[in-house]
Amino acid sequence: MDQEAIDNAIKNALIEKLTLIRAGISNRHVHLTESDVSTLFGKGYVLKHWKDLSQAGYYAYEETVTLVGPKDVIRNVRILGPCRNNTQVELQLSDQYTLGVKLQLRDSGVLGTSPCLTIVGPVGAITNCTGTMAALRHIHMNTAEANILGLKDWDTVSVETMGERAVIFKNVKIRLGKDFITEIHLDLDEANAANIKNGDKVRIIL
Amino acid sequence: MDQEAIDNAIKNALIEKLTLIRAGISNRHVHLTESDVSTLFGKGYVLKHWKDLSQAGYYAYEETVTLVGPKDVIRNVRILGPCRNNTQVELQLSDQYTLGVKLQLRDSGVLGTSPCLTIVGPVGAITNCTGTMAALRHIHMNTAEANILGLKDWDTVSVETMGERAVIFKNVKIRLGKDFITEIHLDLDEANAANIKNGDKVRIIL
Repeated sequence: MDQEAIDNAIKNALIEKLTLIRAGISNRHVHLTESDVSTLFGKGYVLKHWKDLSQAGYYAYEETVTLVGPKDVIRNVRILGPCRNNTQVELQLSDQYTLGVKLQLRDSGVLGTSPCLTIVGPVGAITNCTGTMAALRHIHMNTAEANILGLKDWDTVSVETMGERAVIFKNVKIRLGKDFITEIHLDLDEANAANIKNGDKVRIIL
Repeated sequence: MDQEAIDNAIKNALIEKLTLIRAGISNRHVHLTESDVSTLFGKGYVLKHWKDLSQAGYYAYEETVTLVGPKDVIRNVRILGPCRNNTQVELQLSDQYTLGVKLQLRDSGVLGTSPCLTIVGPVGAITNCTGTMAALRHIHMNTAEANILGLKDWDTVSVETMGERAVIFKNVKIRLGKDFITEIHLDLDEANAANIKNGDKVRIIL
């Protein structure tokens, strides 16, 4: 085997390794502003850390809220931290039928057209009309790994799952971060459609 | 253009047409035996026809039942007709969390390992331990069309959806019937993951 063949074999093995990534499955959740935390839980209330999420610096709180739509309510919706500049409610499309609202699919963190939804905490409630959406799937990718794979921020790839209910998710957006642990974020509808669980491995198709 | 080229062009146009099929989206539903209808609704009760389904001879009744699992209940679950030899409860995987049961993915109509679930009607209840499952996706395909496409009963194909949340569903089973209207059957989890609705067009990849 000459040097070029050896280099190619190493490169292919590395690509094989870096394209097999972890799936992180998101249940519905909310991100709150500090001001909304005060309204829902009381002035000066400090939310209690429950568990760390896979990305460093992100975590779930012990506290949950109730979401109230025109049709019905959803209880025990987890709050994720840290607080954000805009309150955001990330739902599954299947929640539309329960709450009686129509959801827009969009990138997490982006404001847009949203139905009004009331978020209820133990001492107060807010009605938010900008931050309720279903999130488009995406991969949090470590920048160094993306460089090896030739991927840039906002590129799209397909991602294949394994098993009896295998699917290929198309139009998966790449989001780069130098401290990211590479991971695809799917919601519960997507996970159930593919019959995969949090932590399962999936394959990026370049 | 010679005759062979003309024949090929016609064949390709036909394949193009026959591989673009309708999606039929199933919400959770039950099929009941005549005996279970008697238990739930009363001896001699005749279920009322509500609307026809896309396949000839199949329809939904006006009546619904309540499903009771160890954790919680699901109300207003539609009964599909005609009656069957075995009662079957077809759920979405997402219903597992509501009911507190673990579902097996399998082909509709096949009995297997099931959690026990109580089905409640207005005058009675039954507890069924064989027929509760999540259905594997499949295509009801007209036999004449399958012959043109070179597909046999129980073959598997992939099926691609369109749009921002496009997916390719792999391992889709072909089920033949000479009177079938060709249609892929997906459940609500799968439809939401792809953001498609009942009646949307999807493409078979041969």
